[in-house]
Amino acid sequence: MAVTIDQSRLSLNLKTVDGWSLDEALEGCAQAGIGTIGVWRDQLGNGAAARLAASSVGVSGLCRGGFFPASTARERVVRIDDNRRAIEEAAELGTPVLVMVCGPAPDRDLAAARRMVEEGIEAILPDALEHGVTLGIEPLHPMMIGERSVIVTLREAVDLAVAFDHGVGVVVDAYHVFWDPYVEAEIDRARGLIVGFHVSDWLVPTTSTVAGRGVMGDGIIDLRRLRLAVERAGYEGPIEVEIINPELSSRDRDELVRLVCERFTTLV
Amino acid sequence: MAVTIDQSRLSLNLKTVDGWSLDEALEGCAQAGIGTIGVWRDQLGNGAAARLAASSVGVSGLCRGGFFPASTARERVVRIDDNRRAIEEAAELGTPVLVMVCGPAPDRDLAAARRMVEEGIEAILPDALEHGVTLGIEPLHPMMIGERSVIVTLREAVDLAVAFDHGVGVVVDAYHVFWDPYVEAEIDRARGLIVGFHVSDWLVPTTSTVAGRGVMGDGIIDLRRLRLAVERAGYEGPIEVEIINPELSSRDRDELVRLVCERFTTLV
Repeated sequence: MAVTIDQSRLSLNLKTVDGWSLDEALEGCAQAGIGTIGVWRDQLGNGAAARLAASSVGVSGLCRGGFFPASTARERVVRIDDNRRAIEEAAELGTPVLVMVCGPAPDRDLAAARRMVEEGIEAILPDALEHGVTLGIEPLHPMMIGERSVIVTLREAVDLAVAFDHGVGVVVDAYHVFWDPYVEAEIDRARGLIVGFHVSDWLVPTTSTVAGRGVMGDGIIDLRRLRLAVERAGYEGPIEVEIINPELSSRDRDELVRLVCERFTTLV
Repeated sequence: MAVTIDQSRLSLNLKTVDGWSLDEALEGCAQAGIGTIGVWRDQLGNGAAARLAASSVGVSGLCRGGFFPASTARERVVRIDDNRRAIEEAAELGTPVLVMVCGPAPDRDLAAARRMVEEGIEAILPDALEHGVTLGIEPLHPMMIGERSVIVTLREAVDLAVAFDHGVGVVVDAYHVFWDPYVEAEIDRARGLIVGFHVSDWLVPTTSTVAGRGVMGDGIIDLRRLRLAVERAGYEGPIEVEIINPELSSRDRDELVRLVCERFTTLV
């Protein structure tokens, strides 16, 4: 386990360069020497999977499955069906991980919504196993509980993953979990379950609860400490740089990618 | 333990009616039949303690002590001295509780900042005991870690309170802790330590990380479930309505107070 890190570990989540077409992304990554990307379903147009398969770029994960809780059983079935399609898309891309953003509650009953998440994962797990895709539960920051996920601590994500025999893991995103005083103990408990590690930074002040992330080094997260913790827990896979912030799109993209690579190797 | 609640339990935190002078607040509370208030240090002008002592209104808590972590030992001493003054102000007001917002880290080392919080509390505890003021550690929502507090879970607040023999308790603010899947277990563990319970609501979407709170019933917090949990843990004191949102100041104040009272008795 090295203290410093090689750029070969970097995976560029394409939300970081939101607005790039897939072709632009492939070209930009080739120029910057980035061999792995993370993609979102809405970024995949016609023939994207084939183009990616034909390129030399690997895909560390597909965002996102999840969003299971809904107020009616009928709607929950619709969500489960959509997750089955996401699993097929991940398999077609050849990525080993479908990142799961589990979804908010349809009402005030968080416990019931958390049960719906468990039931949803149970329903799609056979499909995931059949396609060789691991479901990576990503706990989100608690400020996203109303809009994005009832799973807001690494502890409950690990509990969920452990509850299933195999096929379910966790994705540790530094931005979502760094605040947790018990995060290193939970990462340790996630040994063998970590299927992704995402980095960005927490800006002070944080002015957006959705899209206010910073480039590594511009905020207050001790990213190296967390990277060493996930490595101690056995994770040696790609590290996704996922910086969701609309302000980034106003920057020169090649310069942004250069900055991301430099901060990655010096700070992560 | 009643399922429904009487308005006599309501304490109006004056941030809810920000902009009211202390005299306006006392008059407004008298009109609405509210017998208890929560106050902030910056709301206390000359002679405020005496005016409050002369009135029939009780004070459930003084906001706020804390803000211990700082980059230099000299600055940490300044903060501790300020906390000693806050304890004296609480004693002068006759309130049993100084609400502690523990402060953010001065750098990326959250663990070090958490130790500074513990050291700060240890330093001022003799003063608190001497003045008969309990230090109520209020864990804040994790989205406030960069600007307001490194203490962001009820679990660590309870751990801290337990670490001191006596004189230190916890303040449970529904807005700050409702997202936690283990909140009811932690409230149970806080038996005998709870010295305050605050209510407001979590709006969806939440557009401000600082001042975006809603009136009870306008958001997604199951307030009654949490109120019953703190009562099962032995807390029977005042329940502070603390709604921090600049939009409230545009409403008619008397109407706002009526709405607060109505929502309190029907939803908390």
